[in-house]
Amino acid sequence: MALFKVQALYDFEGESNSAELSIVAGEVLSVTRVDIGEGWWEGLNSRGQSGLFPEAYVQKVEDSGPPSVPPPALPPQSDWGAGQQDDDWDDEWDNDDTYSEVTNNTQREAYAHEPNQNQYSYGSGQVDNVSESNFSVDNKAQHKKSLNIFSSYVKSGLESYIFGTLKDIPLHTKVRIFRENDNVFRWELISEPYTVQVTSPKKASKMGGLKSFIAYQLTPSFTGIEVSRRYKHFDWLHNRLSEKFNIVALPPLPDKQISGRYEEHFIEHRRVQLQEFVNYVCRHPVLSTCDVWRHFLTCTNDKQWKEGKRKAERDQLVGANFCLCVEAPDKDLLASTIESKIDSSISYINQVDQCMKALMQTATDQQKKCENLYKREHTKIGESFFSLGVAFESREGGLFSDLATDIKKIGTTYIEIAKLCEDQAKIDWQPLTDKLYLYRGITSSYPDIFSMQKHAEQKKKECERNSQIPLVQITEVRKRTDVLTYSVFAELDHFQNEMNTEFKSAMKSFLQEQVNYYQNIVSRLEDTLRRFE
Amino acid sequence: MALFKVQALYDFEGESNSAELSIVAGEVLSVTRVDIGEGWWEGLNSRGQSGLFPEAYVQKVEDSGPPSVPPPALPPQSDWGAGQQDDDWDDEWDNDDTYSEVTNNTQREAYAHEPNQNQYSYGSGQVDNVSESNFSVDNKAQHKKSLNIFSSYVKSGLESYIFGTLKDIPLHTKVRIFRENDNVFRWELISEPYTVQVTSPKKASKMGGLKSFIAYQLTPSFTGIEVSRRYKHFDWLHNRLSEKFNIVALPPLPDKQISGRYEEHFIEHRRVQLQEFVNYVCRHPVLSTCDVWRHFLTCTNDKQWKEGKRKAERDQLVGANFCLCVEAPDKDLLASTIESKIDSSISYINQVDQCMKALMQTATDQQKKCENLYKREHTKIGESFFSLGVAFESREGGLFSDLATDIKKIGTTYIEIAKLCEDQAKIDWQPLTDKLYLYRGITSSYPDIFSMQKHAEQKKKECERNSQIPLVQITEVRKRTDVLTYSVFAELDHFQNEMNTEFKSAMKSFLQEQVNYYQNIVSRLEDTLRRFE
Repeated sequence: MALFKVQALYDFEGESNSAELSIVAGEVLSVTRVDIGEGWWEGLNSRGQSGLFPEAYVQKVEDSGPPSVPPPALPPQSDWGAGQQDDDWDDEWDNDDTYSEVTNNTQREAYAHEPNQNQYSYGSGQVDNVSESNFSVDNKAQHKKSLNIFSSYVKSGLESYIFGTLKDIPLHTKVRIFRENDNVFRWELISEPYTVQVTSPKKASKMGGLKSFIAYQLTPSFTGIEVSRRYKHFDWLHNRLSEKFNIVALPPLPDKQISGRYEEHFIEHRRVQLQEFVNYVCRHPVLSTCDVWRHFLTCTNDKQWKEGKRKAERDQLVGANFCLCVEAPDKDLLASTIESKIDSSISYINQVDQCMKALMQTATDQQKKCENLYKREHTKIGESFFSLGVAFESREGGLFSDLATDIKKIGTTYIEIAKLCEDQAKIDWQPLTDKLYLYRGITSSYPDIFSMQKHAEQKKKECERNSQIPLVQITEVRKRTDVLTYSVFAELDHFQNEMNTEFKSAMKSFLQEQVNYYQNIVSRLEDTLRRFE
Repeated sequence: MALFKVQALYDFEGESNSAELSIVAGEVLSVTRVDIGEGWWEGLNSRGQSGLFPEAYVQKVEDSGPPSVPPPALPPQSDWGAGQQDDDWDDEWDNDDTYSEVTNNTQREAYAHEPNQNQYSYGSGQVDNVSESNFSVDNKAQHKKSLNIFSSYVKSGLESYIFGTLKDIPLHTKVRIFRENDNVFRWELISEPYTVQVTSPKKASKMGGLKSFIAYQLTPSFTGIEVSRRYKHFDWLHNRLSEKFNIVALPPLPDKQISGRYEEHFIEHRRVQLQEFVNYVCRHPVLSTCDVWRHFLTCTNDKQWKEGKRKAERDQLVGANFCLCVEAPDKDLLASTIESKIDSSISYINQVDQCMKALMQTATDQQKKCENLYKREHTKIGESFFSLGVAFESREGGLFSDLATDIKKIGTTYIEIAKLCEDQAKIDWQPLTDKLYLYRGITSSYPDIFSMQKHAEQKKKECERNSQIPLVQITEVRKRTDVLTYSVFAELDHFQNEMNTEFKSAMKSFLQEQVNYYQNIVSRLEDTLRRFE
């Protein structure tokens, strides 16, 4: 049954031998299912072919005919991913996705224009009045919004924190900031450091093979127990973390990608990128100890997973309110120190971001050139020599067969070098690109963090100037603002230290791989040269 | 005084601060002097500017107005290059050029369509009736013709030789071919091998600085006396050698070039190419011993130069008739052996030529890419790292200045590598290109050589079949044809041996330079890597 009609905005080439349907920009399709998940819809084209295509590639056609279609009835849970241990909670997930996909835009916009509503504390009061699925939807819409603009949500969450509107919340975890010296403030180190290995991406499928996906295995060193997570689980986790930790610059997940998702190189590369993400989180004193992350790393049980998921989604200590859990030095910060430190950090982060962007562009470009241009050039060199060798060989009587063989050998040497060149990019330029991608993702959070800090300072000053506010309350506001600023300093310090260590190691391995590469070329050329001596 | 009008065929950009005049395709110029030499004319443009431009860039406008202009009066010798020892004979040279340039095309064409005239023996009979300068002109026109087509001249010269029409010519020099084995025939080796160094290209000028030129110094090992020769002298020599030695595959001179002639790199590169040419001639048993070459290498005196020049231009043992000086094995060659050997050589030379062409294209292309593309890419890499280092340095307090400095050092290392890359092309790809240029020039003579040999065989067979020709004459024809074929075999053998030795050495130094280059990169990267350890 067709739910509604859509028109393709872009061409999409479906993978052959899959459930995917190729679509051509402009063609009209009848959507038959929107509950596939992961941004996929099922539909029928005018030739009667049916299959999956990306939701983002089409737009709804508003025909004046039948009335607008209500969201489809949810299928019974027992129909979903039955028998697959780590996919048992996909149902709910897919439902969430589905619902949010058909949620109408007017509703989303409405949230963005209600500045007085306490958006960041979306776990409080009102939530109990809405259904479970509605909650998820709002949550998601809100998050999408906050990615696009430094919106009123941030300010609102901030005001809730500064003025202490959130009362009687149990604070399970405390994060402490200590003073290293007059200028340096640090998150207290993780008491029990650990690592997590991301391994063995496996292709699996559900809905009787209609849709397949990749699951990655995560093994935390503190449990030794493997859990299986899909990209969409990481995505959910990332949303939770970015809602909760407005003062933490989060590492990014690898890009979503629609085509080539099942190619071996893509899967392995995504595993490496997820490992980078996981490593950064594991080393972060705040992130590595938070509940939702621990839940993500350790939960192996469907029921517990759902409980943990709901708990995370209801968390009230999100946004600026997370600072309620931060224990900062008791000493008041000087306004002048704060301002100069924040301003120099803004300029520094901005400059580093620009330069990382340029180097990342160069690295991506070089990787492509190694795999195409340079490989092709070396192959051409190799082929030119080889052909000359063959021509020399053609001399009757084979008088100069030694030279002919040696010139052919020059040819094969350069063809080998062409292959080296292609392979090389994956072990020098690509890891460098990945590192830069990670750190650019982190620096991209800083404008919002700085902006929030500046806004908090401004609120504090407004209070200080307002003679109607009692002193005891001003002291509270000042204290909370300082905690937030201390948090920003601690976060900046952590970021700096991480970047220093990680870049040092990334540069070292880049250089080492470049040395190996050129050394390898030297060895091969020397071998060939010996034939001429 | 305007001699005649010409219209520019191409744009020509004159070098600034020189006597050159920039011209634009289509514009009409009044030619004021045609006696500049080296392919230059002097003229006036419509804006009244006067200067030199290449003759080849313009064509004469045949206006119906004034009658066609006679050749200009020759300037008195005393006006020319006075005081310059090695330029004393330029007058005559330039006069020759001048005259040939204004000689009308109809006359040249006439030669091409008189197949029965014994063109190759242009030193005989008729020559005494024409003036010195007329002789030179015809000579030049003839040579130009024979470069363009495998013309009747070749066949005519050939017939003169086969039928022995050239009588009572003193044969000063004999060149001997010996039998190495059943299949291999060789030119007898040079009894006293020698070398010639081409050194110190010097810029000099004449006509009071109006025209400047480059003179190269040549020092033969057997005299130790330096002689000074210009490109045009080499060009004259090359013309003499190619007229005289139709059965010898001559090495080519470097290309004529009009723009950038006075750039240091161009001059030095031309010196290297002339050295290659000279080396090949010195090692060639026939070329290295011939009179005109010896004259070119040793003459330091104006009067003797002119005598030698005239003698060379009057030489009657040119073209196929040169074979009269060849002493070949007495044994008759078998027609079947000849044919299979020639045919396999044709296919071999053709294949080698094609492959040399491809490799030369690759080498030229790689040289350009090293000097532009690869240099630019490495510079971009260097700059990207360097900027990131600078950004890291900008962090207040200079906390991470070590890493900043080290990343900047990666940047400078790649910028150094970019420079290496640019310089490298001149020591690996360019010498390889030069070698290929030389050998391609040589192989390009072979189609004419093979064609002449095939034509001789055909003539011989016609004689054998012709019952009216007396046996004694047939025996003579057969003997002379065999001498020519032996010469072709000896020349092929020489070419093969030279190519084998020279390519072996060229490939070796190419590889050695590539090894050095990559080794150099490894060292620099290793130095930089050590900072990270």
